[in-house]
Amino acid sequence: MPKISQKGNQMPESPIRKLVPYAEIAKKKGHKVYHLNIGQPDIKTPEVALNAVKNADIKVLEYSHSAGFDSYREKLSNYYKKQNLPINKEDIIITTGGSEALLFALGSTMDTNDEIIIPEPFYANYNGFAVASGVNVVPVISSIESGFALPPIEDFEKLITPKTKAILICNPGNPTGYLYSQDEINQLAAIVKKHDLFLIADEVYREFTYDGYKHHSIMNVEGLENNAIMIDSVSKRFSMCGARIGCIVSKNKEVMATAMKFAQARLSPPTYAQIASEAALETPQSYFDEVIIEYKERRDILVNELNKIEGVMVAVPKGAFYCIAKLPVDDANDFAQWLLEKYDLNGETVMVAPASGFYSSPKVGLDEVRIAYVLKKEDLIKSVQILKEALNTYNK
Amino acid sequence: MPKISQKGNQMPESPIRKLVPYAEIAKKKGHKVYHLNIGQPDIKTPEVALNAVKNADIKVLEYSHSAGFDSYREKLSNYYKKQNLPINKEDIIITTGGSEALLFALGSTMDTNDEIIIPEPFYANYNGFAVASGVNVVPVISSIESGFALPPIEDFEKLITPKTKAILICNPGNPTGYLYSQDEINQLAAIVKKHDLFLIADEVYREFTYDGYKHHSIMNVEGLENNAIMIDSVSKRFSMCGARIGCIVSKNKEVMATAMKFAQARLSPPTYAQIASEAALETPQSYFDEVIIEYKERRDILVNELNKIEGVMVAVPKGAFYCIAKLPVDDANDFAQWLLEKYDLNGETVMVAPASGFYSSPKVGLDEVRIAYVLKKEDLIKSVQILKEALNTYNK
Ligand SMILES: Cc1ncc(COP(=O)(O)O)c(C=O)c1O
Ligand SMILES: Cc1ncc(COP(=O)(O)O)c(C=O)c1O
Repeated sequence: MPKISQKGNQMPESPIRKLVPYAEIAKKKGHKVYHLNIGQPDIKTPEVALNAVKNADIKVLEYSHSAGFDSYREKLSNYYKKQNLPINKEDIIITTGGSEALLFALGSTMDTNDEIIIPEPFYANYNGFAVASGVNVVPVISSIESGFALPPIEDFEKLITPKTKAILICNPGNPTGYLYSQDEINQLAAIVKKHDLFLIADEVYREFTYDGYKHHSIMNVEGLENNAIMIDSVSKRFSMCGARIGCIVSKNKEVMATAMKFAQARLSPPTYAQIASEAALETPQSYFDEVIIEYKERRDILVNELNKIEGVMVAVPKGAFYCIAKLPVDDANDFAQWLLEKYDLNGETVMVAPASGFYSSPKVGLDEVRIAYVLKKEDLIKSVQILKEALNTYNK
Repeated sequence: MPKISQKGNQMPESPIRKLVPYAEIAKKKGHKVYHLNIGQPDIKTPEVALNAVKNADIKVLEYSHSAGFDSYREKLSNYYKKQNLPINKEDIIITTGGSEALLFALGSTMDTNDEIIIPEPFYANYNGFAVASGVNVVPVISSIESGFALPPIEDFEKLITPKTKAILICNPGNPTGYLYSQDEINQLAAIVKKHDLFLIADEVYREFTYDGYKHHSIMNVEGLENNAIMIDSVSKRFSMCGARIGCIVSKNKEVMATAMKFAQARLSPPTYAQIASEAALETPQSYFDEVIIEYKERRDILVNELNKIEGVMVAVPKGAFYCIAKLPVDDANDFAQWLLEKYDLNGETVMVAPASGFYSSPKVGLDEVRIAYVLKKEDLIKSVQILKEALNTYNK
């Protein structure tokens, strides 16, 4: 029998994959499970996007241009410009989700065994994309005590080797909710320029910032044009994760020409989804204002309620819709499994994502979980109530 | 300025990419260009598929399961069973086009510098997927003189090294239109079993066979369950290339578990497109019957007309909708460029794909072009007329 690849063996499983069978057990017992573990928003997709697909007059559902619809790239460029991001149509290739944009970015800049430095905890699928691309992730730890701020730039400097090709950040962060300051972005810009590295910024949560904090894009740093590669997506912005549309953005012509070769090999991004994504750009500002208010309220509730639990520590997220909470347990994996397998409060329980899956260093973040606030406020309140009682019981 | 990857440098450009500027020149002169170079069918997409999307009642466009809709996988399994392919739901992962299925197949079975043997000429993007996956293509030449039949199995045997992990075939073939016989499939099955290799079969054109020839799937070879990986797609079958839906199929549980990890990293295949693809399975048989008749008539016209030109040799395609023609020229690249840049017959010219792009060996197929018969019959007749006159002029 032929063997699968070592790459295949190394491909990580999703951090919550191991919990799925236990969630099944909870459901079989008739328990209601509150899903604090997922990043699938419950927010409605803008109607203008859905209607565009309903009303599209298609006879032959054709491949689009490999870089995406020309009209969509043009409008997207205008959208960015309105946000003060100087991005032209030629700087954009439409991809199948931010996921594919990440794969194109790695493929265009890195070879087998090259190294990419990523502050951890980070979006778990970066590991998968790195393995798929044959490159090595070099983590630099950011800590809950500092609210997951950028680690000292010397920590990066120490990790740079001749194999280092890029630094990857997620801003605002999944799973941390951290939003980098202009100063932090400038520090990163300086170090990548000094060492001739790429700076890849996953900015898919760009629009989700709270408390008046402003998002600072790497596309706005002067002199960084040849180093900066931005990853973007419609998934969260318009609550249309199922569309599978994102983009890779750079002013570096070589990078774009190379990414284009990857794009041509897979022919085109999905056509229906591009129709929806192009129309979504017409979404009225009121939609976003409401969404931000909703997420901010949810965040406040979540953080307030979590802070009431003894021994729990939360890094208050300034953006995105996740937070990391440190729990008074030794092993959050075990606790998360126990919540599903053994626990219930009046027939209800919660599912959380153990944070160790977001760290690449072993044995870090063992007492942390990621909580996504993509549930209704009542449900969030209930969920934290359950978590509190559960911690009491678990620690007895 | 940071440098792009070597991988990026090695990524091949599409074989017709170099011709695109010359097509622009022809169009600027006001010349009409018949596109014999593309694989985008002009056939209408089944209405049942388009209507399903129009009528879908979506509020939140969510990620689907990473393996695709459960309901779609179930119906697809039934579709295969009706075609006598013993494929269960668990044997299927829905992908973003056959393209992504190919990437998952390579990633799941091969590591950096591993080798995959492919009869050439082959679908040019196999080169791109191989480079992206860090693996090496080892070509084995099939020739127009034998109609692109399977090369002697000894030719494969000679190329097998400890690094060989798989043999990849395209059946029916793009660009050859060749359909493998049961005996040829059996020979391939025997050799992969003997050497513990995977046999990956790209069967995206399975339904397009002519003259009563039957398609022989690798999924039907007994004892090959652990070696066989099938690639499929809705792109051509339902003329819905823009959907971007395909699948990877195997009975090898390890392969499927591994492919699933790749699928999870990129979250999900596109939701709208899955709705369309699931509904497309309800397409009445009459649709396919008409399409096959149409393609067969086109093929007959094309082959007949080409055969009338002195010095032209065609391998009569038994399937798909491409054929390779050998022309009385030294360099088909130059001829193809000249057709666009310098030639016209009453203001019209043709664009063909030089076949050298479909060979991985250098300097092979230099006098061959690939012609796709995805145009109306009148246009095909006109195109070959133009080709004939052009060859006369070119060779003077
Ligand atoms: C930080 C981050 N980047 C990228 C993605 C990929 O999203 P998509 O492929 O849907 O655009 C996600 C999805 O959750 C994410 O959280
Ligand atoms: C032989 C072959 N395989 C795979 C593909 C990929 O098609 P898709 O990704 O649209 O399914 C094509 C497209 O032309 C093809 O000709």
